[in-house]
Amino acid sequence: MGSLDSPFPNSSEVQFHPLDPEEFRKQAHQTVDFIADYCKNIENYPVLSRVEPGYLRDCLPAAAPHEPETLETILNGVRNDIIPGMTNWLSPNFFAYFPATVSTAAFLGEMLCTSFNSVRFNWLASPAATELETIVMDWLAKLLKLPRSFMFRGTGGGLIRGTTSEAILCTLVAARDRALEKVGKDNIAKLVVYGSDQTHSTYTKACQIAGFLPSNIRSIPTLADTDFSLDPVQVMRAMKADVEAGLMPVYVCATVGTTSSTAVDPVKDLADVAERFDTWLHVDAAYAGSACICPEFRQYLDGVERADSVSISPHKWLLTYLDCCCLWVKKPSLLAKGLSIDPEYLRNKPSESKSVVDYKDWQVGVGRRFRALRLWLVLRSHGVANLQTHIWSDVRMAKALEALVAADPRFEIVVPRRFSLVCFRLNPPGKFDSVDELNRKLLDSINSTGRVYMTHTIVGGVYLLRFAVGATVTEERHVDAAWKLIKEKADALVGKI
Amino acid sequence: MGSLDSPFPNSSEVQFHPLDPEEFRKQAHQTVDFIADYCKNIENYPVLSRVEPGYLRDCLPAAAPHEPETLETILNGVRNDIIPGMTNWLSPNFFAYFPATVSTAAFLGEMLCTSFNSVRFNWLASPAATELETIVMDWLAKLLKLPRSFMFRGTGGGLIRGTTSEAILCTLVAARDRALEKVGKDNIAKLVVYGSDQTHSTYTKACQIAGFLPSNIRSIPTLADTDFSLDPVQVMRAMKADVEAGLMPVYVCATVGTTSSTAVDPVKDLADVAERFDTWLHVDAAYAGSACICPEFRQYLDGVERADSVSISPHKWLLTYLDCCCLWVKKPSLLAKGLSIDPEYLRNKPSESKSVVDYKDWQVGVGRRFRALRLWLVLRSHGVANLQTHIWSDVRMAKALEALVAADPRFEIVVPRRFSLVCFRLNPPGKFDSVDELNRKLLDSINSTGRVYMTHTIVGGVYLLRFAVGATVTEERHVDAAWKLIKEKADALVGKI
Repeated sequence: MGSLDSPFPNSSEVQFHPLDPEEFRKQAHQTVDFIADYCKNIENYPVLSRVEPGYLRDCLPAAAPHEPETLETILNGVRNDIIPGMTNWLSPNFFAYFPATVSTAAFLGEMLCTSFNSVRFNWLASPAATELETIVMDWLAKLLKLPRSFMFRGTGGGLIRGTTSEAILCTLVAARDRALEKVGKDNIAKLVVYGSDQTHSTYTKACQIAGFLPSNIRSIPTLADTDFSLDPVQVMRAMKADVEAGLMPVYVCATVGTTSSTAVDPVKDLADVAERFDTWLHVDAAYAGSACICPEFRQYLDGVERADSVSISPHKWLLTYLDCCCLWVKKPSLLAKGLSIDPEYLRNKPSESKSVVDYKDWQVGVGRRFRALRLWLVLRSHGVANLQTHIWSDVRMAKALEALVAADPRFEIVVPRRFSLVCFRLNPPGKFDSVDELNRKLLDSINSTGRVYMTHTIVGGVYLLRFAVGATVTEERHVDAAWKLIKEKADALVGKI
Repeated sequence: MGSLDSPFPNSSEVQFHPLDPEEFRKQAHQTVDFIADYCKNIENYPVLSRVEPGYLRDCLPAAAPHEPETLETILNGVRNDIIPGMTNWLSPNFFAYFPATVSTAAFLGEMLCTSFNSVRFNWLASPAATELETIVMDWLAKLLKLPRSFMFRGTGGGLIRGTTSEAILCTLVAARDRALEKVGKDNIAKLVVYGSDQTHSTYTKACQIAGFLPSNIRSIPTLADTDFSLDPVQVMRAMKADVEAGLMPVYVCATVGTTSSTAVDPVKDLADVAERFDTWLHVDAAYAGSACICPEFRQYLDGVERADSVSISPHKWLLTYLDCCCLWVKKPSLLAKGLSIDPEYLRNKPSESKSVVDYKDWQVGVGRRFRALRLWLVLRSHGVANLQTHIWSDVRMAKALEALVAADPRFEIVVPRRFSLVCFRLNPPGKFDSVDELNRKLLDSINSTGRVYMTHTIVGGVYLLRFAVGATVTEERHVDAAWKLIKEKADALVGKI
């Protein structure tokens, strides 16, 4: 029996100890210093990498080495080959997309998470990991003033996933299967889902993965008049029309803080519509949800108490590093219906007693990391007060930039700022063939310096520049310097004021 | 404009620096020592935690603290509240499920991955991260002797995902959409997928997520005679019958190393069937794939060159920590068809030039971590020679245990051992009401000591004990001690030999 009878490998193998504690200690200390130095020097690196496609293949051998290499050699490789090809998300001059925020506390949490390496598909496979996640999800729910119907202390519950995409996918499957029970399992072609033209593109992807017909994914157009928020009246009309056409509305995704311009969909009014048509209402607050730990911003979540699920991504604004998306649902049993598996090899007494949470039944996969440690360390190590401070500080810097932009007659604020994203464009008096083209050129000339990285979008047909404040180490001086650079480049393009 | 006009938070906030490099250095060093000590003392912890459901809620406050807590306080909490509730996957006495393996090298890789925190949905958002992933995937493909049709150096390519579940889900969507193009988009109810009763339970889950009808997920029964492998003749029959019934076979999942008993499905013969019916063939080698870097085991992948996709999970046996599942596909364009999104805010020149890989189009979500660093560090820091040694060493220990079990007349090997999992049961001569019950009791009595953790399964109607060798720090002495404990508990149940 077995397949390794002869020739048997030689005995040198007994020498291999991939996790010798003292070697671990030494090398991990060395790497900590490497990383601390990277953080210390972060301002010296170009934000946007300037390498050409394919650059790394020329630096590395075509195959993995047969013999070990030293840590020194490897860290030199990171320094010389990898870092020059990084777009440095940690840079204080990173104003692109939405930032992905970090903190010492979360780094330590991640180290601990990694070190335990508990797979914990079910409670028994690591009770502490499951229980800490339930507790931390309740903590964060409380901070966000979510009702008890979303909490383990109430009748709901939450979990941490990698991305909003997965959070949405899981709730879509729950909503889909609930609907299929009514209309018959082979009637998926009848089911319709709703969002706006500003809903994150991953929503469409998740709907397609879950098998909804592309033609049944409604993307309701938004208008500048309503700051590009989803209009409940239009959703109502669309649902009515679909029902009249023999289709069945099953899911609507409301966004609190859209990616293009941080638009806020009216959750309360959408809840009215969702209730009327008995559809699942999900609130995607990936970016702006974190701000709702501050009393000033909590209003944007009003109505969430009537949603079926809500997700926010602390990796965007609550300093947790990737990947940390928190999803709360009112009826975990609906998630489990579509996602539960029960193979013999995972059966155990606590699970059978139904007295524990088995998170494998709430998610796409089976295995899962101990991500709750990261969020737990962030909350404890910083405290709520500092996290609020952090949000306020970013918003204040964005406000300051907004004021600078508004004061320059060559520029205009295209969409009102709500959180820490400023949407503006160069639109000088006088004739220019294409304002869009002008802004494209402006963006290129800014980003190519490597001193600042911003991105663009198009809303309401207008090409605009997105300036997202919020990289963890950004200070006022960085925002000021960025504005100075933007003005310089504008000077070169359209002349000084 | 904006919503934070008054009252404005006080100015103490300027004091908050969540990533001060020197504070980071100090606290990270402290945490490294904490973790090194945990690793050093790992044998002193019970493998299986003995806490009761709900234990942690009594240890922690009901809400996140308002003010910061010190690292000392937090690490004490980890020591006193968390670790006692951990099932210690790192323990050398962990023989449950499949092990999740680790190494200093991968830990350092994870530290670097975390520290860069690059989100990198597309090439531009972090060129080095994308390029390193393509290179490392080619390295591993080469090690596994996968054909160039799976490599970037050839016509295919690969990526790292968190779990096999997601790898399978993405390929299922590709296969589904290819089929729907032929039969019409609203005909998902016609599509049928195939696996065996030994295929991982997550396969069924992935099929359901992708919208396949539960009644169209075929689970072909396996037999002890063929060591519980998927019978191509039966697959052929099932596909024929489905076609005759007006259905369309679209996907078959072959497993190399099933979870229950490490059965190996005959990939080559299944490829014949798949080709005949033009179905997608996926090879799930999550556990045993890693062993195929050794020449003795590569035979089990024979035929993979004719598959459409193949996945293995280095976190199971190649020391990378969670989560690291490698997926290779022959036609990345088919993945992208169902998973690609193209919002304005992510558009950029390199992507439009089609000269780069944008991994967001190969996966469920959009954001992604820089996991390739972990695998890269493992390959470079250990070298292929040591990784092979590691596989051989585990297999040798499993062989040794198998011999001990076989030599005890009270026990029997239920399924032939192929890799490092031994499937056996207590089946003593004489009368026992229920052999299954006897083994249940034996397992309970072993696990409740906290000295060893094993799990069970049922295959072919037989309840058996799974002894999976492979926790990173397991040595022969641990296997010997485990066997001694198993015998002691058997003595107590059925008497000595």
